[in-house]
Amino acid sequence: MVSAADLRRVVLTGGAGFLGSHLCERLLDQGCEVVCVDNLLTGRRENLAPLLDRPGFAFIEGDVSEGLEVDGAVDAVLHFASPASPRDYLELPIHTLRVGAYGTHNALELARARGARFLLASTSEVYGDPLVSPQPETYWGNVNPISPRGVYDEAKRFGEAMTMAYHRYHGVDTRIVRIFNTFGPRMRSDDGRLVSNLIVQALRGEPLTVHGDGTQTRSFCYVDDMIDGLVAVLLHPSDRTPAQRMDRAFLHTSSEADDSIHHPINLGNPEEYSVLEIARMVLEATASASPTRFVARPVDDPRVRRPDVSRAARLLGWRPTVPVREGVRRTVAYFRTLLAADVPG
Amino acid sequence: MVSAADLRRVVLTGGAGFLGSHLCERLLDQGCEVVCVDNLLTGRRENLAPLLDRPGFAFIEGDVSEGLEVDGAVDAVLHFASPASPRDYLELPIHTLRVGAYGTHNALELARARGARFLLASTSEVYGDPLVSPQPETYWGNVNPISPRGVYDEAKRFGEAMTMAYHRYHGVDTRIVRIFNTFGPRMRSDDGRLVSNLIVQALRGEPLTVHGDGTQTRSFCYVDDMIDGLVAVLLHPSDRTPAQRMDRAFLHTSSEADDSIHHPINLGNPEEYSVLEIARMVLEATASASPTRFVARPVDDPRVRRPDVSRAARLLGWRPTVPVREGVRRTVAYFRTLLAADVPG
Repeated sequence: MVSAADLRRVVLTGGAGFLGSHLCERLLDQGCEVVCVDNLLTGRRENLAPLLDRPGFAFIEGDVSEGLEVDGAVDAVLHFASPASPRDYLELPIHTLRVGAYGTHNALELARARGARFLLASTSEVYGDPLVSPQPETYWGNVNPISPRGVYDEAKRFGEAMTMAYHRYHGVDTRIVRIFNTFGPRMRSDDGRLVSNLIVQALRGEPLTVHGDGTQTRSFCYVDDMIDGLVAVLLHPSDRTPAQRMDRAFLHTSSEADDSIHHPINLGNPEEYSVLEIARMVLEATASASPTRFVARPVDDPRVRRPDVSRAARLLGWRPTVPVREGVRRTVAYFRTLLAADVPG
Repeated sequence: MVSAADLRRVVLTGGAGFLGSHLCERLLDQGCEVVCVDNLLTGRRENLAPLLDRPGFAFIEGDVSEGLEVDGAVDAVLHFASPASPRDYLELPIHTLRVGAYGTHNALELARARGARFLLASTSEVYGDPLVSPQPETYWGNVNPISPRGVYDEAKRFGEAMTMAYHRYHGVDTRIVRIFNTFGPRMRSDDGRLVSNLIVQALRGEPLTVHGDGTQTRSFCYVDDMIDGLVAVLLHPSDRTPAQRMDRAFLHTSSEADDSIHHPINLGNPEEYSVLEIARMVLEATASASPTRFVARPVDDPRVRRPDVSRAARLLGWRPTVPVREGVRRTVAYFRTLLAADVPG
């Protein structure tokens, strides 16, 4: 079993984002040196504030789409940089496409050049508006390439294809994690994501915005569980020798159902709630009396999205442990503090 | 109606390829100046030989993935560069991904900077292994992003997403053509495509290679029909003002079924034949007695692929006119000459 001690120095793009900053913190806790690269386009300096003085942490302000140069040894490259909320990627479609293509390529090149392990933060959005539920990793997805939100989905699908190409043609020890909806402290209050949006509206006594009739379902994973899963994927040893990774006969005939650590792994919480149920949990946790305001659903908003996490359970022994209701309570506590600090008096 | 005279100077990437070289020739015939850009990775200088001395033709040897700089006026940019046969893109996966992402982006940037019209050569491969047949443009596809052949499919889907982003966010007058299997003179004899492969094998008296049991079906369009369709898409006037193209409210709510010229258009011949039927046509046209050799089907080889071309018929009045059997005869004549020239005596 590999431990964090074998991955001494980790480069993490998007480290100032919601997931990225939690991951920086966890890796530091486990004894890694962390080089965080972020252009602060959607990531935030405040997320890094608690880390800046910690030994072993370095921050490089830079755009991974333009290039990724890091001096010294690199044992792992984790590519988390991307606008990730629909509000952000609809505003920044070309940035989103570029960081999925150029950014992934630059991060893979760094991993290849240094013989480092590589982990791609992919997304449940690769499944689009799925025709099967829950979604196993073998489901190919139902994505509209030309819709406005196609920019994110296709950028991530492209990133997966590029990652597998580096695995197959350069023998890089790659991993792909398909991250389902995650929530918790350090989400932005203004990026339009469901849980944070509802919590902030409830705390401010504003109406809770619900798209459509609110019966579309979502599965939400609390951030601590997600970070556990990400670290487990990162530290899991490779099940292929470098020669096997590059053996085209071996790989061209292997099925996508293959249980290799190098094939995509879903991480998320399969607990499923309707958007209305989430809104009710938020009202309970905040003791708010906000009414609900129904608005039109965005184009190609998925009707269902729920992870099949049996592969992660089998391969890594990972399972989410924080109930959604408890996660909502913890996230409310975070936003309560944040909003109290924002509002004078 | 726009005529070729309104598009005086056209930049065509991949102009030394099979389709690209036919398109160069047609555009010259219609009075355009043509700047052909090709890195000759899978394109061939021989395809350009008949064009090099024609007035109005210029060839730039260069890789559009690295950049695309063209002096002088540019009225249209046509992005055709890419490895396009499975044999090529399985050998060149990273080139294929790069030309789909960086190449498309560079070509779109040139179009944006010069106020030029843009046409993306996309592909029926965006439909993957389709679950509906024939495939209309509104079908979202069934593509495995991590399979070896996913590199081509995802590169093209990414290119479509990038093209629509330039349309929506920069108001570029873009077009996307999903090109189904096409055949004819100037196909390479060695790139593993079905029709050329079978013809060359038949002419050499070698066994005809058929994947699987040969019952999988294909639709093949003769190259002259395809070029007619491509030119019709290129010359069709825009149905949106630049302001409408960039009006997000307008575009975010428009359905993908919208009949705009700016949405993808299938071009191909819906005549459908099994691979075995094609093999029989080739044997007839070559008067060859070659036997058939059955080999394993490649991973994720589509079982069916057939265009619904009703949108092209409605919008452009375009329909393929050359029967497949006639196209096979003309292609046999080409390869007969080619092979005769190759073999001394």
